[in-house]
Amino acid sequence: MMDLDTILTPTILLNSALAKKHIVEMAEKAASQHIRFRPHFKTHQSAQIGEWFREAGVTSITCSSFRMAEYFSKAGWKDILVAFPVNVREIQRIRQLAETIHLELLIDTPAALPFLTGRFSHSQDIWIKIDTGAGRAGLTLGQKGELLSLCRRIKEVDHLRLRGLLSHAGQTYHTQSAQTVRQMYAASLDGLNALRDYLIKHEINDLELSVGDTPGCTLTDSLGKVDEIRPGNFIFYDCHQVSTGSCKVEDIAIALACPIVSIHPEKEKVITYGGVVHLSSERTTLDGQIIFGLPALLTSKGWSSPVPGGYVSGLSQEHGILHIPRCICETLKVGDLLAILPVHACITVSCLKQYQTLDGSILTAMNDFIS
Amino acid sequence: MMDLDTILTPTILLNSALAKKHIVEMAEKAASQHIRFRPHFKTHQSAQIGEWFREAGVTSITCSSFRMAEYFSKAGWKDILVAFPVNVREIQRIRQLAETIHLELLIDTPAALPFLTGRFSHSQDIWIKIDTGAGRAGLTLGQKGELLSLCRRIKEVDHLRLRGLLSHAGQTYHTQSAQTVRQMYAASLDGLNALRDYLIKHEINDLELSVGDTPGCTLTDSLGKVDEIRPGNFIFYDCHQVSTGSCKVEDIAIALACPIVSIHPEKEKVITYGGVVHLSSERTTLDGQIIFGLPALLTSKGWSSPVPGGYVSGLSQEHGILHIPRCICETLKVGDLLAILPVHACITVSCLKQYQTLDGSILTAMNDFIS
Repeated sequence: MMDLDTILTPTILLNSALAKKHIVEMAEKAASQHIRFRPHFKTHQSAQIGEWFREAGVTSITCSSFRMAEYFSKAGWKDILVAFPVNVREIQRIRQLAETIHLELLIDTPAALPFLTGRFSHSQDIWIKIDTGAGRAGLTLGQKGELLSLCRRIKEVDHLRLRGLLSHAGQTYHTQSAQTVRQMYAASLDGLNALRDYLIKHEINDLELSVGDTPGCTLTDSLGKVDEIRPGNFIFYDCHQVSTGSCKVEDIAIALACPIVSIHPEKEKVITYGGVVHLSSERTTLDGQIIFGLPALLTSKGWSSPVPGGYVSGLSQEHGILHIPRCICETLKVGDLLAILPVHACITVSCLKQYQTLDGSILTAMNDFIS
Repeated sequence: MMDLDTILTPTILLNSALAKKHIVEMAEKAASQHIRFRPHFKTHQSAQIGEWFREAGVTSITCSSFRMAEYFSKAGWKDILVAFPVNVREIQRIRQLAETIHLELLIDTPAALPFLTGRFSHSQDIWIKIDTGAGRAGLTLGQKGELLSLCRRIKEVDHLRLRGLLSHAGQTYHTQSAQTVRQMYAASLDGLNALRDYLIKHEINDLELSVGDTPGCTLTDSLGKVDEIRPGNFIFYDCHQVSTGSCKVEDIAIALACPIVSIHPEKEKVITYGGVVHLSSERTTLDGQIIFGLPALLTSKGWSSPVPGGYVSGLSQEHGILHIPRCICETLKVGDLLAILPVHACITVSCLKQYQTLDGSILTAMNDFIS
């Protein structure tokens, strides 16, 4: 049980039982379909929470930076994919890491290859990033010629081993319909399989496929013709995942405990200590309203459902500006805590780098900005 | 001169000469009008940078949290206003701090008073927050009755000293016209002066007025009937300040150096290492375009004007997605650094907590999440 009196400033609360349930469910889903589960650890960024995945049988993980990979390698993880186009400026760090663990790299351009040539004495796995519609990094589904050329060039480099095609169908984050998410997931997989078939015709064989978004992996029952899934956010979920239909608010496993500093019932407004430095300025749309979080009531055992009609209407550096119906404002007191369900759990963790579980334990995340 | 080869990951670069120029100009503006300059230190959050203000004659400062006030008190600052509605859960920290330095507090509700009663053995200064149109914390200009009542209740509490009325005209951040900023600044001051006059009629005398937004303080030549100004952002400025007309892009004193990880000239797109965890997801509108930052070219001496036609079109956790005209894409290489002028300088500092100056020195900011 938490001692709420010890919470003085904005603090991430974690329902660890719920997070562990999410881990087990996703691990079982992948295992039952004989698909490798390589969860993305950028969401929780915590060696302690990583152990919960190990207990669920996970041995391979995904990171979003080489510093994060270093952090988790020190925590005993031996098989890490950095699912970010390789930052060639960190080549020394990459070499060192690749000598101690099984490290997998990602590229989407031949321009990275000169930096990876002659660097490795072992067989170094390389994935190619495919943009199946997210519009971020990667070769698009139409760039078949460029893809074939890149595959051939990778194969020409000693010690590089072309492992497969990797995508993150981030377009699923921009829809508000579970049905559309499923269609996008299926279309993304179809696109990747078509590229693999095309490459096989050109004697590029044995490629694996890796996909990764939480909405797709959560909402699709049959994960399809894919070798690996890399979802991350599902361990906590958040308001944005609610907006995509991937979860319900009661599935959200973290909340930011925020002190109330001011209450204006006549304006249906509450000001909390908890702003952009704690939640970033991530926003999403729920029920037609742009929100920066959802407020819930807090007890020593956890948080309630979101306050009916309540939402975080704005944030400044340290302030949260909450719309709370008058009848509920009148039950609150300055100095109370409110729980804010975050729009984007991963970023809130990155801002605060520490959790308090509902049984009062403190868990820490990596602090990657201290060089 | 910077050694760009040592920059491996997203790094804040600081043009310290330009920042010092901004400090001196604002200090001289206030001094010439006999107005106290109490700069907001939440922008730079650095004891080392604080010294530049001391060299410009500053002795009183503003902070946005009590942890920040503790940090700067340890750096020798003896007169600190925490311009955030007092977080009563931190009353022990507040008491301790108030015993060692001159600490000024802010409230906007009588609900905070029981927590401040019987806590101080000295005369403790209290400001009342007035909302002159920002819609955040504070009593509005129309709440005269509530204001008078709050003033009287403060005066009834032993050891509390009602110091004055304080506003942050944050509405100036939502306009894109220097003329409108000036009108808002003037209207905000008129509103505060009218409240002070009203209180004088009711025998509440000797109140000071404190105002603080960077757009208003920058764009208004004559600062008017006010006792104190508290701008913060002006030391660095940023893209959002450009959008309000408060500065030009060449006035921006910080940039985020970001490694290029992927270039797609045919899509006029560049992917950088540098995302929401470095820049937050702060956005602004420039020339009708929603942007998350402006890219510039980088040399060992500093950064160029923004790339013509270039802007940060999106951010995910670690990725920056940049629109860059094809002709410029073709001059860039994977592994190069780009400079990103941030939308909101204060938040970028809060994300990274470290600077590199153009002469290669490292400056640190506080790390307020380590309890």
